[in-house]
Amino acid sequence: MTPNNVQAAVVGVGWTKFGHHYDKDLEELAREAGLHALIDAGIERKDIDAIYMGAFVPEIVTHQGSIACVVSEAFGLDEYKIPIYRPEAACASGGVAIDLAIQGIRSGKFDVVLVGGVEKLTDSDATLALSCAASSRERDYHFNFIDLNANVASRHMYEYGTKREHFAMMSVMNHKHAKDNEKAQFRNQIKVEDILELEYVSEPLTLYDCSPVSDGSAAAILVNPELAKDFEDPVFITGSGHGTDSINLSARKDITTFEASILASTTALNEANKTLKDIDICEVHDAFSILGMLSIEDIGFCEKGDSGKIIEESFNPDAKHIVINTKYGEKIFNCGGGLKAHGHAVGATGVRQLVEVYRQLNYDQKHPIYGKLNHPVNKSLSEDPRVGLVQNIGGVGGDVTCQILEASR
Amino acid sequence: MTPNNVQAAVVGVGWTKFGHHYDKDLEELAREAGLHALIDAGIERKDIDAIYMGAFVPEIVTHQGSIACVVSEAFGLDEYKIPIYRPEAACASGGVAIDLAIQGIRSGKFDVVLVGGVEKLTDSDATLALSCAASSRERDYHFNFIDLNANVASRHMYEYGTKREHFAMMSVMNHKHAKDNEKAQFRNQIKVEDILELEYVSEPLTLYDCSPVSDGSAAAILVNPELAKDFEDPVFITGSGHGTDSINLSARKDITTFEASILASTTALNEANKTLKDIDICEVHDAFSILGMLSIEDIGFCEKGDSGKIIEESFNPDAKHIVINTKYGEKIFNCGGGLKAHGHAVGATGVRQLVEVYRQLNYDQKHPIYGKLNHPVNKSLSEDPRVGLVQNIGGVGGDVTCQILEASR
Repeated sequence: MTPNNVQAAVVGVGWTKFGHHYDKDLEELAREAGLHALIDAGIERKDIDAIYMGAFVPEIVTHQGSIACVVSEAFGLDEYKIPIYRPEAACASGGVAIDLAIQGIRSGKFDVVLVGGVEKLTDSDATLALSCAASSRERDYHFNFIDLNANVASRHMYEYGTKREHFAMMSVMNHKHAKDNEKAQFRNQIKVEDILELEYVSEPLTLYDCSPVSDGSAAAILVNPELAKDFEDPVFITGSGHGTDSINLSARKDITTFEASILASTTALNEANKTLKDIDICEVHDAFSILGMLSIEDIGFCEKGDSGKIIEESFNPDAKHIVINTKYGEKIFNCGGGLKAHGHAVGATGVRQLVEVYRQLNYDQKHPIYGKLNHPVNKSLSEDPRVGLVQNIGGVGGDVTCQILEASR
Repeated sequence: MTPNNVQAAVVGVGWTKFGHHYDKDLEELAREAGLHALIDAGIERKDIDAIYMGAFVPEIVTHQGSIACVVSEAFGLDEYKIPIYRPEAACASGGVAIDLAIQGIRSGKFDVVLVGGVEKLTDSDATLALSCAASSRERDYHFNFIDLNANVASRHMYEYGTKREHFAMMSVMNHKHAKDNEKAQFRNQIKVEDILELEYVSEPLTLYDCSPVSDGSAAAILVNPELAKDFEDPVFITGSGHGTDSINLSARKDITTFEASILASTTALNEANKTLKDIDICEVHDAFSILGMLSIEDIGFCEKGDSGKIIEESFNPDAKHIVINTKYGEKIFNCGGGLKAHGHAVGATGVRQLVEVYRQLNYDQKHPIYGKLNHPVNKSLSEDPRVGLVQNIGGVGGDVTCQILEASR
């Protein structure tokens, strides 16, 4: 069944394991994900009309810009000279690439595009510098990127009585969901009490409240809806939103509400003609545990300040998946492990989230490379997921994107 | 008269003087150009649906990424959270921003967008590093960005008998056209014989074959063609092409032909349903004199290798404008001084070129800030220009964009 407001169809995906790829550079990571997506979709390089490839800071890590040309050569696409676009939007570079790719398809200019994201961080000796590239004036006052997120967490605790246990539960949930995901960076299982014993990285956040430094790439093939019938089991994108806010947290009225997130999800849901009731699975951007929790609130799954409460009420460390009872029914968040456990290859994350939801909505398909999904979720343990939402945050809520995906089954 | 294949209408422009703005940062430059464009179009910030802002290397110059959020706050647009997109494509970041903005309008997602480009370079102690960000493997062999362009120039001399005098004439022409342009970085007049006496920066290129290091910003307001009637004297964009090639020059079959340039201009002309006969004025990307000459050849104004010849045949240092007799009639190139004399604020250049052609096609309009154009051109000294072409190159031909603009008079 094809919904009548399809903007683009996802017909194949590829992605690398996230982690420390000391033996691979940015080009190799992007090529691996991209070529696997082509094989998955059953098409060839010459079939692509354009590429949209998000990346955050190769300029800082290896002083390399001109990322479109780097990708062209890495893919062997310099033979065809097809247009390649490289958006930068901090940790939302992947989500913004998706939003732009959809515009490219809707414009009628391109029928078949590859959308991807890539980041290579482990070559860098500039970890602090690159984390600062996502903040601005505040770094002059010696707040690094983790400090800014810690400030948000402290304020949330003060305003809403949120406890460190709540942050820890968010991370435990992510590690649980990564357990059977062979592409995840961390599949080890952790416990709330262990996290509470850790020292602060920046109070109140411990190491286990922070997503790791990761290398990786993810890619998807998007086609004009009219071409979707030529592919097996496409997944439809029916909404895409993007909001941009100030770079400085100190310019916001309320640092515990990301208004760009509200705008992005509202736009995506309205375009898709869906409400949160319709959503079965959801990928939220937990670069830090507090960010994942804010996302649950800002998208509207609970009242502002209540994310800790609803996670605690649904928290079952013995279940295969933690199903959270939201204001709009039971939902599963971060099926593949979130940024915390799957890893956070910055520019790749938004596309990796899309890949995760695509696979969950489409898990019967035999993927030529990846095979069957080994960590499928069942909503309420009785019903396959049909509708997913992906949300990708850049900076401390500065750029937020959101897409709605629907199964064609 | 409205052509029937209009993709977007330009209804206002703004730009800063290009040069060394030691007293202004990236935010202030972008704001000055952007707010002037709004005033020029007679609209307010709240009327904009989205921004596309090209920038090349703020990550290297000030370790600042998240440029969309920086722009949001600089413009005071964090109040509205509208989506802001930041493409990076080396020196073609501005042209790519235009191409993406047109996709955004054609997609139906946005009706009114601000497209801009900005670069702040004079804060940097990393001039070489940022010039290298536009090249890749070759820098490991100690070829910097100027060396690569010098290689192209040497090869062109060897293959086609091009002389250093031809390069010098290209630069003399650009300085001549900047003479009355108050926003140009260099308005001084130069002579061929003086350039030939200079030492090489990288043989065969002298300082006067290279565009300068510049700070600056440029912006334009683009609207859905259906809204164009609400504005005075819009200029229509009827074609936009983009091609991407390898990052490494050594991966190309022929370094004196930029195939991405051929693809970009062919796409733009085809979309606009125009031939080179129809073009009156043309902005080509002369980051180095040789690049401007290659552009004249690759777009098709003469046979490959003949650009030096046609420039020499038309070279009249006493005329107000140098009118070049091409295979398709008389054309004026780089009306405002090109990158050589107007300056090359990298991410801003593609949009600055669009601004130049907009003003030339529309010079009767009373601009609230800029007033009448003080360096209008007349094709063949008898006819106002009606159709313009802008071409913007990233790297050494790695990313090339091209747009066709048509007057509504």
